[in-house]
Amino acid sequence: MARHVAIPDLFQPLVDEIRAAARSADVVILSGGLGPTVDDLTREAAAKAAGKRLVRSTAALRGIRAFFAKRRRPMAANNERQADLPQGAVLVRNPVGTAPGFSMSVARALVIALPGVPVELRAMFDNGVAQLLKRCFPRRPTVAAQELETIGLAESEVDRRLVAIASPGGNPRLSLMVRDGIVTARFLARGRTATEARKTLAAAVKRARGALGRALFGRDGVDISDAVAAMLKDAGLTLSVAESCTGGLIGHLLTKVAGISAVLLEDVVTYSNESKVKRLGVSRALISKHGAVSAEVCSAMAEGSARSSGADAALSVTGIAGPSGGTDVKPVGLVYTAVHLRGRTTVSDLRLSGDRGAIQARAARLALEHLRQRLIAGS
Amino acid sequence: MARHVAIPDLFQPLVDEIRAAARSADVVILSGGLGPTVDDLTREAAAKAAGKRLVRSTAALRGIRAFFAKRRRPMAANNERQADLPQGAVLVRNPVGTAPGFSMSVARALVIALPGVPVELRAMFDNGVAQLLKRCFPRRPTVAAQELETIGLAESEVDRRLVAIASPGGNPRLSLMVRDGIVTARFLARGRTATEARKTLAAAVKRARGALGRALFGRDGVDISDAVAAMLKDAGLTLSVAESCTGGLIGHLLTKVAGISAVLLEDVVTYSNESKVKRLGVSRALISKHGAVSAEVCSAMAEGSARSSGADAALSVTGIAGPSGGTDVKPVGLVYTAVHLRGRTTVSDLRLSGDRGAIQARAARLALEHLRQRLIAGS
Repeated sequence: MARHVAIPDLFQPLVDEIRAAARSADVVILSGGLGPTVDDLTREAAAKAAGKRLVRSTAALRGIRAFFAKRRRPMAANNERQADLPQGAVLVRNPVGTAPGFSMSVARALVIALPGVPVELRAMFDNGVAQLLKRCFPRRPTVAAQELETIGLAESEVDRRLVAIASPGGNPRLSLMVRDGIVTARFLARGRTATEARKTLAAAVKRARGALGRALFGRDGVDISDAVAAMLKDAGLTLSVAESCTGGLIGHLLTKVAGISAVLLEDVVTYSNESKVKRLGVSRALISKHGAVSAEVCSAMAEGSARSSGADAALSVTGIAGPSGGTDVKPVGLVYTAVHLRGRTTVSDLRLSGDRGAIQARAARLALEHLRQRLIAGS
Repeated sequence: MARHVAIPDLFQPLVDEIRAAARSADVVILSGGLGPTVDDLTREAAAKAAGKRLVRSTAALRGIRAFFAKRRRPMAANNERQADLPQGAVLVRNPVGTAPGFSMSVARALVIALPGVPVELRAMFDNGVAQLLKRCFPRRPTVAAQELETIGLAESEVDRRLVAIASPGGNPRLSLMVRDGIVTARFLARGRTATEARKTLAAAVKRARGALGRALFGRDGVDISDAVAAMLKDAGLTLSVAESCTGGLIGHLLTKVAGISAVLLEDVVTYSNESKVKRLGVSRALISKHGAVSAEVCSAMAEGSARSSGADAALSVTGIAGPSGGTDVKPVGLVYTAVHLRGRTTVSDLRLSGDRGAIQARAARLALEHLRQRLIAGS
């Protein structure tokens, strides 16, 4: 992708942007502005940019009516506007929403308009646009890309380990992205043929895997929860979780994974001390002595979770996500994670910086990473 | 904001973009590319765009060294690069990360470079950049904006209710955004003075509040969980949650709210039937007769959660998030939510479309909305 531009819902800037993009790129994808309301201007702007007028498409209208009929919902009059397409445009069906898309030529480019709702955009890309692009550009691609996902290393350390394998100006080209404690290394290889690009990519990725070692947990956008879920499934192990400061985020990340019910028995978010005592059997004396945020209570949470759920593995987290609740001895960002597996409990302590949301996001992922390292070690 | 552009980490396109933006806007904010690695090109590109060279800033270097020293972490040699600023640029301190920012003049614009990490960007904007902008543009703003957050209405219905109050071309200007079942109505008012803009805004927002009624739950980016947390806190009520298909997302949304520990006692993610029986006292016979995804089991989950936690209010969800597990009678997207409050349990059923993630995201928010409506009704 050469360029991603977001502009306000204003008619003339949108027309200008479509024209400028259509002069410099082979393919222009417009996302959003196909809804039923008056601030949805993409249809009009694309028509103007191509010097065409809007025509109501009977095929598009049928699709919209069918969408409402299937859900037994009344269709508002303004939904009919969504069937207006620039003259000569080709309809791109929307299997999951009301807004149909379309494709058309503007200047030297193929312009494709899709809805802004991510799930609709993705479905339409997979079920139509991908085919369309292949048909229009049969000789491409001569590039090949892969992302490697790492956790537990600083960005500068990932950079140091990969600098001899790929660089921002080289082939493959390397770029690094950081979010929630995960560092993604993206390799983009070019070649005279697709085979050559893939070969260049494969050689670099192989070396990178060696350089990253145990910090590498997956590829192409998978989250650490996907990796842990797959390992548990492969090993035939069940899991229970006990969370405090992460408040359900570990459960949320794990249950994003389809089919997780074969693995995850339960997640108990024991936000109060009382709940830790009642749900997990953590002793009141232990909480009084060490505090709810302590290695001792974290261990007891994991052990209590395994005992009461009957799961093979248990993961627990307790910490101070802030903004308040921190002390000199236990500052905001102090988080313990514990894993109970095969009769042995290990505790790890983290010191995280950032706001409440950032601390929760990283704590949840580093807790899952703790479990992953135990599963790798196999004991 | 007139324009948001994202481009790859390539030197010349970045220089061109900075130059073009600096010709057309008063303020250009660059985000990202200030890290320690070789693909962090913003410093070099901004210098080139301004026709300056890079100079190592001792003040910036001190800040980076202090960051590592405070965390007792070794500083990699490539972190020193982060202290290189274009000649004549003014340092913008980073209170939460290693990457310092800077501001400088390019053509007719004030160019401000900030890190891409959201928590760092936000902290630097609030602690420095906001002041800087006020100092450089003392007479502005003559615009005033407010967002109203609604849930439970389709985008077309929100549009219908607001069309007489504000429109995309009017003053205030109206734009609608949709995500996870929430429709946000954004009003942007202009005036010859700031007071006039605020007055125009206030008048429209007052009418919009009336038109939106109970569907309106908050303003300016708050989530439904913030609204529910505030209502529970104000009413002095405690809450427990029992989740199945949403897998911890309700707990996650609630525990994003600072200070939620005064309200939330626990959240039990009973992903297995066994866990529903053991943790919530749902009867095996009920699950056999009606299925785990049923109004009956959902009610029993809420009642069991209230009983076992001792909370004043309990919220439960069970459903089929997909992609598998659906049948003709109980398709993917069928979700039940139940609220137990003051001795009475209400159940609501939802039919949601979209992929697993979209179903979970909307189910969690509509469950919280169910609780909110019960709290409004006061019984």
